[in-house]
Amino acid sequence: MLSEQTITDSAALIVDKQFFTFAEPPNKMVLESGALLGPITIAYETYGELSPLKDNAVLIAHAFSGDSHVAGYYSDDTDKVKPGWWSSVVGPGKGIDTNKYFVICSNILGSCMGSTGPASINPESGKQYGLDFPMVTVGDMVNAQKSLIEHLGIPRLLSIAGGSVGGMQVLEWCVRYPDMVRSAIPIATTMRHSALAIAFNEVARQAIMTDPNWKRGDYYNNTPPDMGLAVARMIGHVTYLSDEAMRRKFGRRLQGKNDFSYGFDVDFQVESYLRHQGSKFVQRFDANSLLYITKASDYFDLAERTVQGVANRDLSIVNSKFLVISYTSDWLYPTYQAKELVQALKRSGQNVSFCEIEADAGHDAFLLPDERLKNLLRGFLDGVFTS
Amino acid sequence: MLSEQTITDSAALIVDKQFFTFAEPPNKMVLESGALLGPITIAYETYGELSPLKDNAVLIAHAFSGDSHVAGYYSDDTDKVKPGWWSSVVGPGKGIDTNKYFVICSNILGSCMGSTGPASINPESGKQYGLDFPMVTVGDMVNAQKSLIEHLGIPRLLSIAGGSVGGMQVLEWCVRYPDMVRSAIPIATTMRHSALAIAFNEVARQAIMTDPNWKRGDYYNNTPPDMGLAVARMIGHVTYLSDEAMRRKFGRRLQGKNDFSYGFDVDFQVESYLRHQGSKFVQRFDANSLLYITKASDYFDLAERTVQGVANRDLSIVNSKFLVISYTSDWLYPTYQAKELVQALKRSGQNVSFCEIEADAGHDAFLLPDERLKNLLRGFLDGVFTS
Repeated sequence: MLSEQTITDSAALIVDKQFFTFAEPPNKMVLESGALLGPITIAYETYGELSPLKDNAVLIAHAFSGDSHVAGYYSDDTDKVKPGWWSSVVGPGKGIDTNKYFVICSNILGSCMGSTGPASINPESGKQYGLDFPMVTVGDMVNAQKSLIEHLGIPRLLSIAGGSVGGMQVLEWCVRYPDMVRSAIPIATTMRHSALAIAFNEVARQAIMTDPNWKRGDYYNNTPPDMGLAVARMIGHVTYLSDEAMRRKFGRRLQGKNDFSYGFDVDFQVESYLRHQGSKFVQRFDANSLLYITKASDYFDLAERTVQGVANRDLSIVNSKFLVISYTSDWLYPTYQAKELVQALKRSGQNVSFCEIEADAGHDAFLLPDERLKNLLRGFLDGVFTS
Repeated sequence: MLSEQTITDSAALIVDKQFFTFAEPPNKMVLESGALLGPITIAYETYGELSPLKDNAVLIAHAFSGDSHVAGYYSDDTDKVKPGWWSSVVGPGKGIDTNKYFVICSNILGSCMGSTGPASINPESGKQYGLDFPMVTVGDMVNAQKSLIEHLGIPRLLSIAGGSVGGMQVLEWCVRYPDMVRSAIPIATTMRHSALAIAFNEVARQAIMTDPNWKRGDYYNNTPPDMGLAVARMIGHVTYLSDEAMRRKFGRRLQGKNDFSYGFDVDFQVESYLRHQGSKFVQRFDANSLLYITKASDYFDLAERTVQGVANRDLSIVNSKFLVISYTSDWLYPTYQAKELVQALKRSGQNVSFCEIEADAGHDAFLLPDERLKNLLRGFLDGVFTS
């Protein structure tokens, strides 16, 4: 996230994290790889009220390092220091209006923010899974979310919205469970990672896996691979910003001095920013989760590999109305990739609206307060809800 | 470099690395930081013959990880396995024609390919400098090159050409020693690093400095920080390519199998490529040299910091004819930065030609064989030589 957000008008929105556990042994969940996983706990939060017709539920899918805390404040956060990560978008009167809609956000499978992931206890060994955690895909994340939605008694979602890896979940939902998704809002995302996106993820993974403290993922009772994780996060942050955003935010300004150090301490503000982001991240995120989630995003593809090769999945079965959004300065998932998605959907006869938002903040733009995004979301959701 | 080059027609060009040592104590060189350094050895190679009028010398400035071996083959390389890194450009009948011009290429100060750098023996301690090596700037590199040029008895260079960090040296020469540079060819370079370029360098440095084997640079008698250096090199390689080049070269092709591993081994070809580049690099390059040279490139600026702030250096004193070249897909030093250079030079009354070459290979494009580059260089140099 580019900067801390001050969202005073969501002060009234108080929420608590909840947990749903399923796939208890022996009825474990079958993953896309064929491996079995269970029990599975999904951490989630809800906002607003489910309508008697159960037709106003909106699922938010978070990005790689996000969590279920999409809006408002936790009830024990009396000083209101931790607003939800999309408080600018989700809340009373906002783009996704919690006065109208029942909003759900769950932490993805494989993460470390309350849902089952590599740092969870493996019931078979009594200790953390580490690399014994099976590989999970975006499809597996969506299957876990579906169990939660069924648990909440919701037959069909009014909409699913999400940016980045969240957008991949949106698309996966539409293909996997077409009858459960009335509308879909994939934002700043792609049908499949380019070689460039895979390359950045691979370098981040290598930074962790070459940290001697990583110990093939078995570090939970020792020093974690914080150095590698910090470098991995720095790489991520460079890809979330844009050339223009970095020029505006940092330029070549020096950090608290007038001349170069002629050494390897911080000289430029951008160096200080990256080091700070790296060291902050290790306090809240698990290195193994980064490995699993980046790999899931690299694997994600709206095409299938068969013995005949790679073919697009059948998008004609999809039964959702789409609002696809991209940002001009996003070079991780550039607009040309959003346009490829729009064209693939249209070729399959889908109802698609597309909007490219002019913004210089790079990939991170979707997380920042923006009136245009608010108006787009509000208009689109109201249209679907009243149609 | 994108790929191994097969340059059969430079087979006749045989060369040997030479060494020039100067700045012996007590007459050490004064560096830009104020520190003293000496003795300094510069490794260099020459090609062709210096004319009786000494008016046909062309200096090539190499990029960050390059060396003095710009063309031909070493006399002991009987199997001809290691052509010079710019053999497509420098040689008999090539863009920089060694039948006409006396070409010099020297390894930069701070590197590890024969010139004095952090891996050299510090005469005061009798062991490798490590971090006791003083910070060197692009200006210091140029000062060392100037000592070599004077040693070779050349009063004025016909031209200086270089890409990337080599281009920074070209520009620094023009400002520092205007009467010694008849013409200048800065390629795929910039007047100063953007925040984005500094960010990539900083992440690469952090990858090394967080490797426990780095030991604040004092690793020469122990295991070197190969893991960190490999990750740093992978980061570099991502920035040298382009989205388009990576799509063409790798796409989402899998490495030698038909399905995902559902693990953290190599799945995609681009992962294999990056790991290979990383592990290859640690065999030939010193991690401390990466730290010093990236920092020098971050510091480089065709502006001066004074108590009043930052102001462009006086380019009106420059006395060279310029050919500025950029590449369409270079996102490390994009064309807009080359245009800023061209405008600054023109505002100062300089004679500037500018060419943007259409190429999808990214920053690395300048290293690849290209008829357009050859013709540009040949035409420009012939024009200067005969004027």
